[in-house]
Amino acid sequence: MLIIGENINASNKKVGEAIARKDHEFIADLARKQAQAGADYIDVNAGSAQGCWQSPEAAMEWLVDVVASVTDKPLAIDSDVPSVVGAGLRRYQGDKVIINSVNAEPARLQTIGALVAGHGGLVIALAMGDGNIPKRAEERLDACKSIMSELQKMGVREEQVLFDPLVLPVSVDTSQAVVTLRTIEGIKSCYPSAKTVAGVSNVSYGLPNRDMVNRAFLLMAVAVGLDAAILNPLDVKMMSFIAVADLLVGKDTACRGYIRAHRRGVLTG
Amino acid sequence: MLIIGENINASNKKVGEAIARKDHEFIADLARKQAQAGADYIDVNAGSAQGCWQSPEAAMEWLVDVVASVTDKPLAIDSDVPSVVGAGLRRYQGDKVIINSVNAEPARLQTIGALVAGHGGLVIALAMGDGNIPKRAEERLDACKSIMSELQKMGVREEQVLFDPLVLPVSVDTSQAVVTLRTIEGIKSCYPSAKTVAGVSNVSYGLPNRDMVNRAFLLMAVAVGLDAAILNPLDVKMMSFIAVADLLVGKDTACRGYIRAHRRGVLTG
Repeated sequence: MLIIGENINASNKKVGEAIARKDHEFIADLARKQAQAGADYIDVNAGSAQGCWQSPEAAMEWLVDVVASVTDKPLAIDSDVPSVVGAGLRRYQGDKVIINSVNAEPARLQTIGALVAGHGGLVIALAMGDGNIPKRAEERLDACKSIMSELQKMGVREEQVLFDPLVLPVSVDTSQAVVTLRTIEGIKSCYPSAKTVAGVSNVSYGLPNRDMVNRAFLLMAVAVGLDAAILNPLDVKMMSFIAVADLLVGKDTACRGYIRAHRRGVLTG
Repeated sequence: MLIIGENINASNKKVGEAIARKDHEFIADLARKQAQAGADYIDVNAGSAQGCWQSPEAAMEWLVDVVASVTDKPLAIDSDVPSVVGAGLRRYQGDKVIINSVNAEPARLQTIGALVAGHGGLVIALAMGDGNIPKRAEERLDACKSIMSELQKMGVREEQVLFDPLVLPVSVDTSQAVVTLRTIEGIKSCYPSAKTVAGVSNVSYGLPNRDMVNRAFLLMAVAVGLDAAILNPLDVKMMSFIAVADLLVGKDTACRGYIRAHRRGVLTG
């Protein structure tokens, strides 16, 4: 499973403050730790970049520089604002990159699509348009089809797209975990060369013992074809569940990753 | 999820000895505890019935009597020997019953098929013929098709069949968990009115921390359509994972089962 480390995100209060005060070591440390913990990509999100920043574009450039200075892991350039994504992409020198993210909203699709077509790399495509997350799998698949159709017209290839099926809380609507699973199946069926990615934690919003629900849902999503996850790679138990998931989908040759996780003593029986 | 309690099985040494000495209270206690723990059916398997028994048929009749005397839960009459299944069925007075099991071997299919057609109830159908468990999902599906075809000729309806996709250890062949998942998907696709059932523990044979692998695999199987499980309902953690699985597939109205499991304090984060 492909792991995108989510920890360098300004929506986290401490991270936002560290970005605001240009705290190189705080960010560098988060990048190093995620790389060591097994992240395949490091996500960077500068938010609106308050504090000493003149613009969020400048903050994104700085984040790219800091992370690239301490790890060879590729980056996921994460912003709602296309000009911030563009600034991060121009600054980043690595071969591999993820653009996070696009959706089916026409204007965003055009600007982000042009960046993906021009720069290469992968793009995370949210299965939604401009409004709320659709409640039904069919509507989410329609959004995926609009996105793929437009991206392909712009020269983006199917294998560059990481579709996010999106996740809503089961505490609000108990059918929502199944909606996400059916969306993953639909995407894999329509676009066998595209990949799927999700951040699962929204599923457990409002419930006790959220971690267990999140891990359980990740396993269920892997069973129907989830390829990648956006998560905190410092969550050792979650990473161990991913070792089990990789084992059970046949991606762990001779069970080596699972045995390593067992030896770390983090598997709970 | 439908739970078939597996604990009254002569292949377990203590249970086999209790049957051999006709220990009514030992068996009655196992039946009561499984019913209280949430089993929907109680499986009874008398094995070859050593000890004070003149025949395994007589031992099966006794098991049926003992269990039916302490719980209203329906039984799963479990034997490799059709005459023992027949003896159990004739003795049992309950409305609902599971016949455990048939496979694609022609002679067995005829004798067990006749019992199912004559007696009604559900039948567990193993996705295999007379030899070893097939290694590939296509071969297991072929066995399911042979079974369904023959059973339907005998008047058994699709909704009476619980297909067991079968499980082989990933420690021997890392592709085997996926083979089981693909078999479940194939069965649900071919026979939407039939149900699927599995005992998952074989998947973890030869690995450390087997319980975690078993629980993870159960969740993955539920994600692709597993309807029922044969397991030890006294395994509180496994039953809690089933509460999470039921929650995530939308079978737990208002999250009540999950909240109950949480209050029992058995959910591990």
